[in-house]
Amino acid sequence: MFDRIRFVLVAPSHPGNIGAAARAIKTMGFRRLVVVNPRVGRYRDHPDAMALATGAADVLAASDSCATLVDALGGVTTAYAMTGYDREFGPPMVDVRRAALDAAAGFGLANEGQIAFVFGTERDGLLNEDVERCQFSCAIPASADFSSMNLAHAVQVTAYECQLAVRGLASVQSGQVRFADTDAPAGVVALESFFAHFEQAMIAIGYLDSREPKHLMARLRRLFNRARLTQTELDVLRGISAAIIESRRERAGRKKSRLIIP
Amino acid sequence: MFDRIRFVLVAPSHPGNIGAAARAIKTMGFRRLVVVNPRVGRYRDHPDAMALATGAADVLAASDSCATLVDALGGVTTAYAMTGYDREFGPPMVDVRRAALDAAAGFGLANEGQIAFVFGTERDGLLNEDVERCQFSCAIPASADFSSMNLAHAVQVTAYECQLAVRGLASVQSGQVRFADTDAPAGVVALESFFAHFEQAMIAIGYLDSREPKHLMARLRRLFNRARLTQTELDVLRGISAAIIESRRERAGRKKSRLIIP
Repeated sequence: MFDRIRFVLVAPSHPGNIGAAARAIKTMGFRRLVVVNPRVGRYRDHPDAMALATGAADVLAASDSCATLVDALGGVTTAYAMTGYDREFGPPMVDVRRAALDAAAGFGLANEGQIAFVFGTERDGLLNEDVERCQFSCAIPASADFSSMNLAHAVQVTAYECQLAVRGLASVQSGQVRFADTDAPAGVVALESFFAHFEQAMIAIGYLDSREPKHLMARLRRLFNRARLTQTELDVLRGISAAIIESRRERAGRKKSRLIIP
Repeated sequence: MFDRIRFVLVAPSHPGNIGAAARAIKTMGFRRLVVVNPRVGRYRDHPDAMALATGAADVLAASDSCATLVDALGGVTTAYAMTGYDREFGPPMVDVRRAALDAAAGFGLANEGQIAFVFGTERDGLLNEDVERCQFSCAIPASADFSSMNLAHAVQVTAYECQLAVRGLASVQSGQVRFADTDAPAGVVALESFFAHFEQAMIAIGYLDSREPKHLMARLRRLFNRARLTQTELDVLRGISAAIIESRRERAGRKKSRLIIP
């Protein structure tokens, strides 16, 4: 099913963005990149494209290039025009999560062909005439004050949603431990002070060898972070740490006394 | 609530990625970027950072920089270590969608403080010791074959999920096509008048036999209902229906004339 979704870049200006888009889709398991009428025709071996593709040089090299959007949509039954706003005569608007779920669900239908997500230029997005060639307009929800996403970032978010939908991971996993309203949670800075304090205590009693600490503190961090300590609990644990260190001092003191007095 | 989530970059190598991260979080409505021990100390006015921040120069300029991760986490009660894999002694792993929903839900609790999403270096990600300072490990689901996301792309996906969660948009919208605010939707009664009118037109031109109508009108209803007609579109279609009927009358009139006159 990953091969049935393609990502189409219409008239990108910067080869670097094509390379970054290749990497973005590959991280999400996709491989089909189509470039329509790029400003730099020989983009595949452009140094910016290759630098930003990194481990996705194969996807970049195998990308198709076409002269027109219609050429890029062969075999496609549903094309989503990525656009931040609803055009007057554009197709109906869906958000990218809905689009990804519908695309994945469509693969269960006998007559659904391939799916395309179509992205416009870095500067202006898609022309109206290209939006109108698509069956849906598709938006990535963004800030009302500043919605100008980088082209490759938009490809990344879209590929991410498609991957979750295709893999059936779109529903949310089970929850995690949270604080009850009555608890004052310990902050991370306070936790760090406690861990340092407790480590001193462990060194003081000889349980931890600072020259060979192994994984003791990592294990304790894991335990206490999993427990999501409250401030009250942290106070208790710091009291224990202080008591451990103090007891060690006293014992050292007594030993010394014994050594001297008898 | 947008100000209670911060994005922390630990030891980024490339100022361009810091600028791109600033743009990424701003597109999703966030403003708090913290940079820990960057390789280029004066990153805020570095040309790559400024070029990639584009409209988010304000977020870049207002970013904090700190010497250590703990310094970056003042006021934070829950820090998520962004990492692609579960570390042996790391905190429990959640995916980024779950983390975002929990972060947003946490803001409803009296004692939850601020939330941090912590990202490692471009090349190696976070060190174990930094992962262990966080309360959760947090993964962006990615391809098993190639999971190496660009740093700013990972920030973008994380900020995208946080935005949806904070705005309460995380649940999937309905798949229904909705009308834009500027469209006057055609009401059901007007639709019925149109269907009756169009049926007359189909009968007039002999395409529909009223004694054996089959499923023609049902098919057309299905088509037009799926399209969710606006009133303007309906007016156009009624005009077409009238024109079809009128053209038929004229032709019948001409035939009749011929029959009479010769």
